Amino acid sequence: MSEVYVTRRTKLRARCQASGSATALITRPANVRYLAGTAPRGAVLLLGASEDILLCPGPLDDRMDGRPDQALRIHTLPGAAGDPAVAAADLAAGQHAGSLAVEEHHLTVGRHRAIRSVVPRLRLADLAGAVEQLRVIKDEEEISCLRIGAEIADQALGELLESILVGRTERHLALELERRLVDHGADGPAFATSVGTGPNAGRPGHRPTDRRVEEGDFLSVCLGANYRGYRCEIGRTFVIGTSPADWQIDLYDLVFAAQRAGRESLTPGAAYRDVDRAARQVLESAGHHEGLPTLTGHGVGLEIDEDPQLAPAAMGKLDACVPVTVEPGVHLPGRGGVRIDDTLVVRPEADGGPELLTITTKELLAL
Amino acid sequence: MSEVYVTRRTKLRARCQASGSATALITRPANVRYLAGTAPRGAVLLLGASEDILLCPGPLDDRMDGRPDQALRIHTLPGAAGDPAVAAADLAAGQHAGSLAVEEHHLTVGRHRAIRSVVPRLRLADLAGAVEQLRVIKDEEEISCLRIGAEIADQALGELLESILVGRTERHLALELERRLVDHGADGPAFATSVGTGPNAGRPGHRPTDRRVEEGDFLSVCLGANYRGYRCEIGRTFVIGTSPADWQIDLYDLVFAAQRAGRESLTPGAAYRDVDRAARQVLESAGHHEGLPTLTGHGVGLEIDEDPQLAPAAMGKLDACVPVTVEPGVHLPGRGGVRIDDTLVVRPEADGGPELLTITTKELLAL
Repeated sequence: MSEVYVTRRTKLRARCQASGSATALITRPANVRYLAGTAPRGAVLLLGASEDILLCPGPLDDRMDGRPDQALRIHTLPGAAGDPAVAAADLAAGQHAGSLAVEEHHLTVGRHRAIRSVVPRLRLADLAGAVEQLRVIKDEEEISCLRIGAEIADQALGELLESILVGRTERHLALELERRLVDHGADGPAFATSVGTGPNAGRPGHRPTDRRVEEGDFLSVCLGANYRGYRCEIGRTFVIGTSPADWQIDLYDLVFAAQRAGRESLTPGAAYRDVDRAARQVLESAGHHEGLPTLTGHGVGLEIDEDPQLAPAAMGKLDACVPVTVEPGVHLPGRGGVRIDDTLVVRPEADGGPELLTITTKELLAL
Repeated sequence: MSEVYVTRRTKLRARCQASGSATALITRPANVRYLAGTAPRGAVLLLGASEDILLCPGPLDDRMDGRPDQALRIHTLPGAAGDPAVAAADLAAGQHAGSLAVEEHHLTVGRHRAIRSVVPRLRLADLAGAVEQLRVIKDEEEISCLRIGAEIADQALGELLESILVGRTERHLALELERRLVDHGADGPAFATSVGTGPNAGRPGHRPTDRRVEEGDFLSVCLGANYRGYRCEIGRTFVIGTSPADWQIDLYDLVFAAQRAGRESLTPGAAYRDVDRAARQVLESAGHHEGLPTLTGHGVGLEIDEDPQLAPAAMGKLDACVPVTVEPGVHLPGRGGVRIDDTLVVRPEADGGPELLTITTKELLAL
């Protein structure tokens, strides 16, 4: 595995050097993990002029996620040694680096100031989202982690559907799903599991409440597994009871059509905003303008919400091997709504088109 | 409740004005919540020259934690409107504020730069930890939330102790504790529940693994409830089986003595470092120097780890109505260890001394 990390750091170094910095300081945890194999709490990565160093506050131990790349030097700093970012900048200065690129979108003003005061002669540049950009296209190892995570989420959801739901609270269903994720081998939930019933169903980002599932409700569920650091997402909506109302069937069919249109537009070269538009226009043409989510999908990987954003104003085009969610929904205040969410990997037509990772049925199940 | 928030903002405004800033921008979520009553995701608070405004990306809805202070103006920004911090700075400039104090320990370099470019004539100052300092001493309403949270954690732990433990994994015990916290009315766990068995027991910050509880193990548990945003903490260590080994009894007695010494030193006016030393010297005088935690306690409140730090180099003295943890421990690599952790509120002698919130027994229970 070490080669993977060396290759990633080599790519990043080339980008830094092209923009005039011999060294870079990585502070954002998901970026540290991507380049170093692990990101112990508070650790930073120095991409040095002569060597790369992971600086950790306190000893590395077997509690950390992931394994550090063997090609990396590891510095552990005692607890009272101060900010590892400042220590890293000091090392960069010692390597006679003229400038250090930092993640200005993550580093605080206070830490930036501390670095400047300790190494005033080091020019600080902005690395911007260089690591985030590298992370967009996944290798097959990364996709394999997402695929396993999606299988785990499918299993957890499938088991829930076989149990009695009426009378149970949103909170309990969410906790039960999280327990089942761990049962099936997840390192944990990918994000806080959302369960919404009745008027809460279909509301994006809904936090589970003490409301109990009732006969006739919509029930919407959104969950994902964290497997070896990689996070996937699945969302489904069901009806409780034997016969869905007409408005429920109509709303479900509409969101299903929007989600299918989004999925079918996932091809290498498609503009992010066109994928969004494909799904969004189905909802808008049925008169739903209010209460639509600001995006209809996003990248997933080491973070649950990463680049790209599939949104009306997003700039850029999809590449092959980019995993994204497609998750349109409609929420009607006071009545509830529908949300359908899959994780897929963009693949060329020749390879069969988008690869669906979350395979739980999208038929409207009456439970 | 509105008066509470108005009073807090008035105190902060006085501090800002004393250091030359008529306005302040609060971005750290726990600080926003402390001053505004709620902190929707991405929201920032402008302490303005003429009025205070909570700027939220997207509409407020009933998913948010807490309720916004009624005396506050609320601006909701559409999703595409950009960074609320920049919008807030623009408003401050419109109020003819000469300078704006920002939280340099939280605001990123990128956002700071964006503010400067939009309102170049506004002088940006550093608010530093002014809000964190206000948060140290709690009012009785806040302490009451912590007290209820502690009761919930005690209940969850008590129920776990009545169940069969041998053969169950650390992960499952942790998930079960979290479910019980929610059962008893917590909004959620205060932090990721830690369960360590055998060689993992007593290790600070241990993440639950698939190791199963065995006869003869130490079992250490650390959990807490989030109740209305306030987070408490309790940690206990048990032995599994009928007869603890002599080394287990000795180690337990030692940590218990250290923890008692820490608790008994909690008086208004006591230096943070003296509380730490009281606990730490008991462990050190028994020959334990390696593997001691960097701190033996810390403040709790809207965050699980807030000021003060009870550590060897900490500066400052305890006040009445400051809730802190006292949590010394010893971990012997390969063998396991003991950790005992309470949340207490500092109270004057005349009021009966420190108020213990987490009342689960600290006898060495053999389960």
